[in-house]
Amino acid sequence: MFRNFKLVSRMVFGRGCFSQLSDILIEKRTTGDGFMVFLLDDAFSGTPLQAAIPLEGRDRLILVNVDDEPKTKYVDQLTADIKTGAAEIGGTPAGVIGIGGGSTMDLAKAVSLMLNNPGSAADYQGWDLIEHPAVYHVGIPTLSGTGAEVSRTTVLTGPEKKLGINSDHTVFDQIVLDPELIAGAPEEQRFYTGMDCYIHCIESLTGTYLNEFSRSYGEKALDLCREVFLNPGPDSDDKLMMASYCGGMSIAYSQVGVCHALSYGLGFVLGLHHGIGNCVAFDYLSEFYPEGVKEFRKMMAMHAIQLPRNLVAGLSSDQVETMVDVALVLEPLWENALGPDWKKTATRSKIRDLFLQM
Amino acid sequence: MFRNFKLVSRMVFGRGCFSQLSDILIEKRTTGDGFMVFLLDDAFSGTPLQAAIPLEGRDRLILVNVDDEPKTKYVDQLTADIKTGAAEIGGTPAGVIGIGGGSTMDLAKAVSLMLNNPGSAADYQGWDLIEHPAVYHVGIPTLSGTGAEVSRTTVLTGPEKKLGINSDHTVFDQIVLDPELIAGAPEEQRFYTGMDCYIHCIESLTGTYLNEFSRSYGEKALDLCREVFLNPGPDSDDKLMMASYCGGMSIAYSQVGVCHALSYGLGFVLGLHHGIGNCVAFDYLSEFYPEGVKEFRKMMAMHAIQLPRNLVAGLSSDQVETMVDVALVLEPLWENALGPDWKKTATRSKIRDLFLQM
Repeated sequence: MFRNFKLVSRMVFGRGCFSQLSDILIEKRTTGDGFMVFLLDDAFSGTPLQAAIPLEGRDRLILVNVDDEPKTKYVDQLTADIKTGAAEIGGTPAGVIGIGGGSTMDLAKAVSLMLNNPGSAADYQGWDLIEHPAVYHVGIPTLSGTGAEVSRTTVLTGPEKKLGINSDHTVFDQIVLDPELIAGAPEEQRFYTGMDCYIHCIESLTGTYLNEFSRSYGEKALDLCREVFLNPGPDSDDKLMMASYCGGMSIAYSQVGVCHALSYGLGFVLGLHHGIGNCVAFDYLSEFYPEGVKEFRKMMAMHAIQLPRNLVAGLSSDQVETMVDVALVLEPLWENALGPDWKKTATRSKIRDLFLQM
Repeated sequence: MFRNFKLVSRMVFGRGCFSQLSDILIEKRTTGDGFMVFLLDDAFSGTPLQAAIPLEGRDRLILVNVDDEPKTKYVDQLTADIKTGAAEIGGTPAGVIGIGGGSTMDLAKAVSLMLNNPGSAADYQGWDLIEHPAVYHVGIPTLSGTGAEVSRTTVLTGPEKKLGINSDHTVFDQIVLDPELIAGAPEEQRFYTGMDCYIHCIESLTGTYLNEFSRSYGEKALDLCREVFLNPGPDSDDKLMMASYCGGMSIAYSQVGVCHALSYGLGFVLGLHHGIGNCVAFDYLSEFYPEGVKEFRKMMAMHAIQLPRNLVAGLSSDQVETMVDVALVLEPLWENALGPDWKKTATRSKIRDLFLQM
């Protein structure tokens, strides 16, 4: 069985295409009382990007904070807030537009789902638990690398688990890929987010799960990452945006590996963001990805990136064991990386030793 | 302004995934009287592929003939036939599934549109003339290279013109990409159809219209074509299928060039199929695409392809002038290839001379 996957319905790509957003939304403002909700990463508060958002009539602009990765509680709170606002004006939201990095886009996906589904976002963490289609939702990345613009998940930290709402309804109805929007990102953030794509490609292309669809997209994403981070030029933003898109598409029939498994452990215990967590872990994985790690270090040197070190050594033994637990539970990742006999290589002590170096 | 384009809604890719078609269609058979119409290239009459089509209840299987490229008259006739059959059983078609090469997929697209739109298919040749969404329609390629599986057009020959029905509604709701289905294609047909993709990539990547989206897809399609035709291996069918898909996607923000312009002339006057017409023309275009033509000849030699020759020399002067007219009318193709001053290079006598060599 191969996954029959849902694609983003519409997309526009090009420098300056953000200015087309107003026209794109017109046909979705069909109900007289329908208003749009824009979720904007609060790092853009007061910037020209905020000023360029095509607010009309009773549209709402909500500045969202993604210092922490998105929590189900935050999704519930935003959803309730939007519903209350809608009730006050006697309208219903016609669309949710997320403008920001992977976390902001994930918030937009989750809120658009929860506006049409009862209960808490935590109730839907898992696979295909969503019953009702989401409100029309649009993703507009201002950072590239996560692939959130094309994925069928929205990764949330709930009271019990960090797990995505995986559903065909999660997929965006529209994405707007404007390379000019990623031009101003801080260098470190750009690097760590870009490496999410690079590391994903290394893990999936060397893995045991793969078909030609995912290989083609993964190879292209990898080529583009190499151009962006080893041979930068005037088109680097365009290329990084395409790398993220291709990396996201390649997920359809591939799987990540050792690095993502360890990164989840780091994220769960230390609250480390996904992109930087991957980088911290990847640097210690020469044994599994010798060529990839070598090239990654070259990229780090070229961009003068200093990884945080000694994050784990000072933790309690309980915390380290929790990291190991979180990493080991991700069986498909280990199997993809090491084959069906992965348990022989990826022992608790081996994984603990890896963590203790970080 | 960048095109905000519609993507195929769902896709499945993988060896043997054709066997999932029955499951894919189940959720579309929702109305009690809804039946599916399968259009199968009659070259597959009596083959295991025909036997594997998941016919149920009142489904219809229609063997279509694509010896000639699809005509609006044929689309009208098929549509009327399906409507008459539906009226007799008091049902309505729930879906149209095209199984074959580009021509068969184009027929399926056109019929699905015409089942929901009045008049003749000829009334809709052009851009965005379709008013009502098509019946659910599925594309299943048995030849790869045209990109018809992802395009927003269905190229038809009408009483007055050869022109596509270009519309967002033309795009397939579902595609099923099973590399096993293209394994048995005759070598020449496989080559000519594959070259549709290769030549498209050469024309678009060397052209003046392009952005990073189309460049990324075009480069990947080109790489895959090279692997398939210069370094074939056990995954060649998978790669060719992905090349066609990527080539089709790259069309979003790119344009073809000199070869396609001349090929339209050959097609219009000689009735030459699109794939072979491109190859006939491309072989004489070293002046415009020196590297591409060199590599193309290497591919021809490796696959022992003998191009038809002396097709034009014996034609009447009127016929040759018609070819030149048809080629010259395609202004965006010339501008893409040669820039805004294309008229200085692409004179009538120059184009006539090119045709007379073919």
